[in-house]
Amino acid sequence: MRIAFIGLGVMGLPMAANLVKAGHEVTGFNRSSAKASRLVELGGRAASSVAEAVVDAEAVITMLPDSPDVRASYIGDEGIIASTARGALLIDMSSIRPDVAIEVSSYASRKGFPMLDAPVSGGQKGAEDGALSIMVGGESDAFEQARAIFDVLGSTIVHVGQSGAGQTVKAANQLLVAGTIELVAEALVFLDAHSVELEPAIKVLNGGLAGSAILSRKASGMLEKNFAPGFRVELHHKDLGIYRDAASAAGVFSPLGAAVTELMGSLLATGGGQLDHTALLVQVDELSGRRIWTR
Amino acid sequence: MRIAFIGLGVMGLPMAANLVKAGHEVTGFNRSSAKASRLVELGGRAASSVAEAVVDAEAVITMLPDSPDVRASYIGDEGIIASTARGALLIDMSSIRPDVAIEVSSYASRKGFPMLDAPVSGGQKGAEDGALSIMVGGESDAFEQARAIFDVLGSTIVHVGQSGAGQTVKAANQLLVAGTIELVAEALVFLDAHSVELEPAIKVLNGGLAGSAILSRKASGMLEKNFAPGFRVELHHKDLGIYRDAASAAGVFSPLGAAVTELMGSLLATGGGQLDHTALLVQVDELSGRRIWTR
Amino acid sequence: MRIAFIGLGVMGLPMAANLVKAGHEVTGFNRSSAKASRLVELGGRAASSVAEAVVDAEAVITMLPDSPDVRASYIGDEGIIASTARGALLIDMSSIRPDVAIEVSSYASRKGFPMLDAPVSGGQKGAEDGALSIMVGGESDAFEQARAIFDVLGSTIVHVGQSGAGQTVKAANQLLVAGTIELVAEALVFLDAHSVELEPAIKVLNGGLAGSAILSRKASGMLEKNFAPGFRVELHHKDLGIYRDAASAAGVFSPLGAAVTELMGSLLATGGGQLDHTALLVQVDELSGRRIWTR
Amino acid sequence: MRIAFIGLGVMGLPMAANLVKAGHEVTGFNRSSAKASRLVELGGRAASSVAEAVVDAEAVITMLPDSPDVRASYIGDEGIIASTARGALLIDMSSIRPDVAIEVSSYASRKGFPMLDAPVSGGQKGAEDGALSIMVGGESDAFEQARAIFDVLGSTIVHVGQSGAGQTVKAANQLLVAGTIELVAEALVFLDAHSVELEPAIKVLNGGLAGSAILSRKASGMLEKNFAPGFRVELHHKDLGIYRDAASAAGVFSPLGAAVTELMGSLLATGGGQLDHTALLVQVDELSGRRIWTR
Repeated sequence: MRIAFIGLGVMGLPMAANLVKAGHEVTGFNRSSAKASRLVELGGRAASSVAEAVVDAEAVITMLPDSPDVRASYIGDEGIIASTARGALLIDMSSIRPDVAIEVSSYASRKGFPMLDAPVSGGQKGAEDGALSIMVGGESDAFEQARAIFDVLGSTIVHVGQSGAGQTVKAANQLLVAGTIELVAEALVFLDAHSVELEPAIKVLNGGLAGSAILSRKASGMLEKNFAPGFRVELHHKDLGIYRDAASAAGVFSPLGAAVTELMGSLLATGGGQLDHTALLVQVDELSGRRIWTR
Repeated sequence: MRIAFIGLGVMGLPMAANLVKAGHEVTGFNRSSAKASRLVELGGRAASSVAEAVVDAEAVITMLPDSPDVRASYIGDEGIIASTARGALLIDMSSIRPDVAIEVSSYASRKGFPMLDAPVSGGQKGAEDGALSIMVGGESDAFEQARAIFDVLGSTIVHVGQSGAGQTVKAANQLLVAGTIELVAEALVFLDAHSVELEPAIKVLNGGLAGSAILSRKASGMLEKNFAPGFRVELHHKDLGIYRDAASAAGVFSPLGAAVTELMGSLLATGGGQLDHTALLVQVDELSGRRIWTR
Repeated sequence: MRIAFIGLGVMGLPMAANLVKAGHEVTGFNRSSAKASRLVELGGRAASSVAEAVVDAEAVITMLPDSPDVRASYIGDEGIIASTARGALLIDMSSIRPDVAIEVSSYASRKGFPMLDAPVSGGQKGAEDGALSIMVGGESDAFEQARAIFDVLGSTIVHVGQSGAGQTVKAANQLLVAGTIELVAEALVFLDAHSVELEPAIKVLNGGLAGSAILSRKASGMLEKNFAPGFRVELHHKDLGIYRDAASAAGVFSPLGAAVTELMGSLLATGGGQLDHTALLVQVDELSGRRIWTR
Repeated sequence: MRIAFIGLGVMGLPMAANLVKAGHEVTGFNRSSAKASRLVELGGRAASSVAEAVVDAEAVITMLPDSPDVRASYIGDEGIIASTARGALLIDMSSIRPDVAIEVSSYASRKGFPMLDAPVSGGQKGAEDGALSIMVGGESDAFEQARAIFDVLGSTIVHVGQSGAGQTVKAANQLLVAGTIELVAEALVFLDAHSVELEPAIKVLNGGLAGSAILSRKASGMLEKNFAPGFRVELHHKDLGIYRDAASAAGVFSPLGAAVTELMGSLLATGGGQLDHTALLVQVDELSGRRIWTR
């Protein structure tokens, strides 16, 4: 398959590379061209513009930072939709606002393009290993058509509804992850303040109904005060903003969502933007008047 | 081993029965005697008073509703400590306030008794199957001595620190469980309000960093609007009060803990006390102006 | 002074009428023309388009529902700025986003127009009585120039900073009002649940450091279960959204702001949009399992 | 009138002194005797024990730190009730738990003593000036009997219900004060972050529905970074604990109450216990990543 891949960042480059390895003909484009050169070394091609990248593509994948980037890339005279052969499959794998996903896919549809929103979770490691979770919104036909691509990139691939549904699930994912980190942070500070031994406590907590992927995969790093990212506070804060706006627009009551958004915002505002999101633990610890965990 | 078992309720009776099955000589006492008769049918003995139950016991286990019950059972002229042969092992498996656990075990210690706090999670099913998680606070010697008993009752048995530490971990467990249920409730209402298909969404969410035992074990019941307990709102509210007081006493900042305590309290105050704690979903749904999930 | 007044709604019409009474030459425009006819009866003139209204105005006042209305009215080929004589004083008295106020006034400035943002509080009654509080952002020169107009419309007129500052203060006002209503609601339900006599309690509370305009002006209506607006939940929810976005953009930690925004959102989502904002009392009462106050 | 005054602290001593000045025969008792000596200088008498102070009193007033102190002073073999002539009027003016007020007054009633709970607000200055607000719970007869005393001590004297009602209103007062301080703190940081001029902003905010005693009396001190008490964080935190427990016991949903309790607790835990409660502003400022206000 001839695939154009727009956005070769920390996530995009290994994803594009996996598509090359799987035998696809991949043309990449990135604003800063060093990343595109790296793709060429790995067997792909580099384009010097979006238009050049997509011109004869059967599928176009975008992996971009935020909603305005996605909107700008697809819509407009030099955008993907203006430059791609009608009928090519468009797949946006960025994490953006569900309403923007719907807006762009409606635009695409009017122009004769099937489009999917397919954000991922699993981080850089998941991207490298082809083991991402992929949450897909859009028409079933388009989803089936994209299967071959998704199978290369991810291990859990789920079609969750119409256009925008992928982004909605991603937003819910980010709520659950941030909220669970905060709960675990409050629990760890509580346990430590009462002189409980933390490693056995985590073990027994994780064995029951309190168990979570955060306890399994993140708590030991938290105990060791390792707050190198991982997933940065800055990005998680952006994603919680997406959740909050989408929840508010639908009238959804989300008091824990609102509270953790404030806390993540404070962590960002106090200089923690480049830390791993588990640094919420440092904040709880400081606000409890202790200095056990430090940045 | 000669074991006195005080408190033969929903949890206590199957636990005592498992000890009988394992070959221990178990004498039970319960305020209402019907439960004690049931233990006799299963091969145990029944006593007509606490004093009679404990008189020649090598170990005494209590499984009682709340902190004042535990304090009253151990301390006082007709209490366990006054009636038991010095040196017998005392094990309180109730879920109570950590400070009361410390107070009672200090009293026991002054009177020459080793004592453990060993609350459990896993519910009635875990009690019946001998598959409880047991969080144990107290001296290592006493813990080793109690091993044989714990091995009959539970599958995850962890020594988490000094006296009170078991109860502290139980309190943290109840925070994490309530908080995660509320987060999942907010996420489900959010997803449903945006017309996402919930079953595939849960599947993909549970596959990544948002995954939790609540999503694995409870979300499908929540989707089916099944709010029969399980673990009752009433009891979870009591436990969150224990957490809150212990957190506050230690100066621990716990904004999500405080928020979910208010929400569980409201669910209780509005008549939901006998529902499963996952009925927090109904509350979020109602407060979002929808009537998808009903009590 | 020749004044064009755009937006003759519940607030705009009495404001324009007061300017007529004060001897100004007022030409009004409203999307639905019935309101403009009413202004003519009161001695003003009616225009059939924005362009016609502003063509020879020395000052233009806008009083419009929301940020997009304001942006659309000022900017564009048929907008106020394109149609007004260069140098006329522009005054937006709507309650809108501070960032939009800054955007529009920057645009105006580039085109050679001084512009003020001057939102008000005091409601329909304040508008009718010429007793509004007016919070003004923009250049001091423009503020001095607008004095004669503001003196007709309001009784408290304060210049609070550069462009956007008026809207920022209005947003803070809406936070304080909503937050204080919610606090008073929680206090009243608490007092009533403990069988305290509410009228004397309000009297003594209002006499000390707990005193507030909400207790002085709104609490007796709340006791009487009078939730006819006044200021509608729907509008207050919009304004809290403005606050929240502006707070978040500046990295301001606002946990009470976030919490009351969720509660106001829930009141809206459950059908309370047309009630007075003091209906937060009904919500607290219901969530406390009582039915003392009803909608 | 012969009055025994138990507890001659920062509040109690000036209150007792005002009663002396008004012509009453006042015998004081304080744990540390220096304060009692000061009362003698002012024309009162000093007793060396509670029993000696109350033996021939017609009225007994207590002004003590916390609930256990009050319980211990009234109940027991050497307590006030055991030592006072039957029928003397008992008035507790401490700020304590409503349930303890009810417990002690019930005990008093069974022993033949009328008793009032009559906590105050207005601080040291209000005590010195005889200008306290006094919130009184108990029987109307006892209230009328105590009028002559209250008129000396306070300027706003309100009978709010049966025993405990005075303490309940005081708890609500402390909720409203803490909550309003926090709202004003969030608003000030928000305004400052957007470069609004704070003094005019406070003026216009205080003129409308956002107005409050906190804005009138405290905001200028907050602007000047003056956090010398005033009313200490430590004491306000104690009082919020009383509110929270009483609200929770009655099933009252109080999300803002819970949130501000956590924040005040954090201010205490991070070393702010001796600051004025308006230091919540410093906390909001720090958590917003600014260092405009410092302790």
